[in-house]
Amino acid sequence: MTHQSLGPGPEFDRIRRIAETLGGNAEALGDDCALLEVGGETLAISTDISVEGIHFRRDWLSLEEIGWRATAGALSDLAAEGADAPSVVAALALPPSVDAEAVTQLMRGVGEATAAAGGHVLGGDLSSGGELSLCITVIGHTLKPIKRVGAKPGDGLWVTGALGLSRAALFTWLRGETPHPAARAAFAHPEPRIRVGRWLGQHDAHAMIDISDGLAGDARHLAAASGVRLEIALERLPVPPEVDATARAEGVAPHIFGALGGEDYELLVALPKEFGEKEARDCQRATRVPLTRIGEVVPRTQGGGGVIFWHNGEPVSLSGFDHFK
Amino acid sequence: MTHQSLGPGPEFDRIRRIAETLGGNAEALGDDCALLEVGGETLAISTDISVEGIHFRRDWLSLEEIGWRATAGALSDLAAEGADAPSVVAALALPPSVDAEAVTQLMRGVGEATAAAGGHVLGGDLSSGGELSLCITVIGHTLKPIKRVGAKPGDGLWVTGALGLSRAALFTWLRGETPHPAARAAFAHPEPRIRVGRWLGQHDAHAMIDISDGLAGDARHLAAASGVRLEIALERLPVPPEVDATARAEGVAPHIFGALGGEDYELLVALPKEFGEKEARDCQRATRVPLTRIGEVVPRTQGGGGVIFWHNGEPVSLSGFDHFK
Repeated sequence: MTHQSLGPGPEFDRIRRIAETLGGNAEALGDDCALLEVGGETLAISTDISVEGIHFRRDWLSLEEIGWRATAGALSDLAAEGADAPSVVAALALPPSVDAEAVTQLMRGVGEATAAAGGHVLGGDLSSGGELSLCITVIGHTLKPIKRVGAKPGDGLWVTGALGLSRAALFTWLRGETPHPAARAAFAHPEPRIRVGRWLGQHDAHAMIDISDGLAGDARHLAAASGVRLEIALERLPVPPEVDATARAEGVAPHIFGALGGEDYELLVALPKEFGEKEARDCQRATRVPLTRIGEVVPRTQGGGGVIFWHNGEPVSLSGFDHFK
Repeated sequence: MTHQSLGPGPEFDRIRRIAETLGGNAEALGDDCALLEVGGETLAISTDISVEGIHFRRDWLSLEEIGWRATAGALSDLAAEGADAPSVVAALALPPSVDAEAVTQLMRGVGEATAAAGGHVLGGDLSSGGELSLCITVIGHTLKPIKRVGAKPGDGLWVTGALGLSRAALFTWLRGETPHPAARAAFAHPEPRIRVGRWLGQHDAHAMIDISDGLAGDARHLAAASGVRLEIALERLPVPPEVDATARAEGVAPHIFGALGGEDYELLVALPKEFGEKEARDCQRATRVPLTRIGEVVPRTQGGGGVIFWHNGEPVSLSGFDHFK
């Protein structure tokens, strides 16, 4: 049994303790997915629970959107492993306010997000509950699992898609206002990055991670697992202009807002230095998802590994923003 | 895509509607497990959500027992399919009252129930939540999945283990009293029937179902799926004497209490008529789980399929007890 190194944080302390408790009964608790060898194939498995009031609110999203977003979150872990062809099971806890028609709408969202990723819903479980929650478990196929470990000095660091839009929607709602349509769509209907994850896996990705907890934090996990330092140029982050107004209202620059992120189901990937803009265009043609080079992998120094953020050539500390909610 | 026939009931109406909504994206929503073909092997998958206040209470069970029981419930679905070697993932929603030490205890129970079934915990997810819930997803290997369909007229009907003890514990707690130790143990620490399920699968079981919703209701599902009638002799049910006092206090005979059941993770299985008491002893020697012959499979008549219950040669209607909570 090998445990991936995890970055700091209370959730990861809990996962470490669970790993210690389970001893030989726990495997790979630190990666996006667990892996299971079956009949010569490698399956990637992830389970993800979404709870009303924590992950979504019914006054922000339709029931179909709640089902879609919960499913996209679980599928994002498969994408980060380079897995595809997902099979999905859904367990729902249902308060009395969720009637049969509402369950149908939730499951329609689960089914549509699964179909958009080329997968199938296999079954599920329904229970009464005091609050609405959706537990989505996904099982995908992988030729060569892409892990958090494997980034090498000299690799380029790339991200898929755009950063900050979902978080902009969240913060706008929390202020009691109506999000920009592009921000709302990013939050309500995130596209599972299954195809681009698979494409990157087939094009020599060295290491990959889902950045749904925010680029800043998840980059630290990748650096820790790979035993390297990452250097990221904040001005290169693909933060769309629709994020600007919300970031300013929260008192931070848009690139900082995008780096803290935390609601986007995008991927951070270390690719060999030969992978350049031409290859990024090939990827976009094949998957319709843009790739942006945001930095590079460098060796650890006496100063350690971790992540150094730069902005226009100056080092920037994000630690003051870590508890920025 | 084929849907198993389901017996009556509002939960099953909801599952039917979900199946219609998902169309080609839903498969086998009516069986204990979903099945997935991977590299020439057949995996059985089930997901099960347990919610505080609905499935367990922290003043009745220790945290380890809560983890064990939630896991045993999911493993019971695998057992009913004749699957073994389970891989388990656990997603927990945690209210503020559940601290890191409590999570460790919950997960210790998950790990111990998994190990008792010869399996491994692969990973999980932790989230905040307003109430404690555990979503346990299990993936097992099956040589030949045993389904609800397949019971043939002439087959013997058998159950594993004992009926009514868990329910006796539940009803005793609900009256504010302390359960008999045997009843408490059955509720807190149900043994996943993985080994006996696998043994029965290897000994020509025609059809099998987990009776965690109660023998009376689950037998109807097996009859409906197989297109047969089941006849069950209530006096043969393996209802231990520790159930008597609780059943009498609830105003029903122990065999009725045992037939309504609903908390036991036992299996109901249709076996060829050649399977007799000698084979049942072989099973008990191999798996340490007793088997009891409780009835037989007969053809549908003009009166239909379903289940006829007999007691000492007289037909008994359980419908008056159906809403006996």
